[in-house]
Amino acid sequence: MIEEVLVHTNNQGLHDMTKPITDLVASSGISEGLCTLFVQHTSASLLVQENYEVSAKRDLEVWLNRLVPENPEQYSHSSEGPDDMPAHIKSALTATSVNIPILDGKLGLGTWQGIFLWEHRRSVHTRKVLVHLA
Amino acid sequence: MIEEVLVHTNNQGLHDMTKPITDLVASSGISEGLCTLFVQHTSASLLVQENYEVSAKRDLEVWLNRLVPENPEQYSHSSEGPDDMPAHIKSALTATSVNIPILDGKLGLGTWQGIFLWEHRRSVHTRKVLVHLA
Amino acid sequence: MIEEVLVHTNNQGLHDMTKPITDLVASSGISEGLCTLFVQHTSASLLVQENYEVSAKRDLEVWLNRLVPENPEQYSHSSEGPDDMPAHIKSALTATSVNIPILDGKLGLGTWQGIFLWEHRRSVHTRKVLVHLA
Repeated sequence: MIEEVLVHTNNQGLHDMTKPITDLVASSGISEGLCTLFVQHTSASLLVQENYEVSAKRDLEVWLNRLVPENPEQYSHSSEGPDDMPAHIKSALTATSVNIPILDGKLGLGTWQGIFLWEHRRSVHTRKVLVHLA
Repeated sequence: MIEEVLVHTNNQGLHDMTKPITDLVASSGISEGLCTLFVQHTSASLLVQENYEVSAKRDLEVWLNRLVPENPEQYSHSSEGPDDMPAHIKSALTATSVNIPILDGKLGLGTWQGIFLWEHRRSVHTRKVLVHLA
Repeated sequence: MIEEVLVHTNNQGLHDMTKPITDLVASSGISEGLCTLFVQHTSASLLVQENYEVSAKRDLEVWLNRLVPENPEQYSHSSEGPDDMPAHIKSALTATSVNIPILDGKLGLGTWQGIFLWEHRRSVHTRKVLVHLA
């Protein structure tokens, strides 16, 4: 069973998508199995991370922007804007697909884990995530 | 079929967990399939890497600690200690889930590949890894 | 169903393997499912990335080589050449396994996504990728 989840973004950073994924798992009726997410983009990625502290999410974003700066003279691929090539690099360093086991009809996330779409572009986007449940 | 594997850590670095995973696959009776690992933490990750040379594992740890230093003035999220925010960042740069095909009843690892729990905190922890076999 | 795909490399960089994977999916007859790739090496990885602009692929390679330089004095593991330890590090930062859902008998890749074997060594290699289809 494959479903599509859309995430609307209007800036860089972590966008929590735990709720729609949790809902899909609940309505699937699967009690034990595997949930696999796949993001159909090359400038956004998936992350299972700390779901509680806003400061942790902010620090993560600041750190990644320092590691992969918008430094036009470093890149030859710049036709789509100064945040485009850094977005491809960030996407390559993080995950395009993620698996989470399903236990007792629920996602087997740890206490502090949430599921995030990590947007690496600054402008408005609708990101498509495919969710495979089995 | 989902099993739980516990890994006890008392410092940063790679903890070999190839043996318990290999054992689970052997006892599952699956001859062809897929083994999926998921770590239920946001400050530890999973790695399939060089299983032989101790120097390679040490170099990897040294390099990652240089990339993500314990530099308190860089982080606003510091209430859980100086190694906490770097651990979240390292976790985001590495894998939370990993898949390994099962062939002829065994994990399809390459000659030099082992499976590791990568601990990013310095203190004592018990890390939980879910193993989905299908 | 598990198949093996070989990728012949003779330098660092992204080697497009979208076509052989697409062909395997087509010949499998699976209309809805999941395709999982696993690379059996610790100095090469898998990447789903921009399939169109050559400049983006080149920038990605240049950036990663700058992040993980061949700097012999940094590494104690150097017996297999100056590009060996950097290759293990690059492999640890990128993906060893990747999942792509199958929809309507085809890989559910986004418009600009291709599948690449990312070679991190400079010399000639034959890389083995296991492809699990279910």
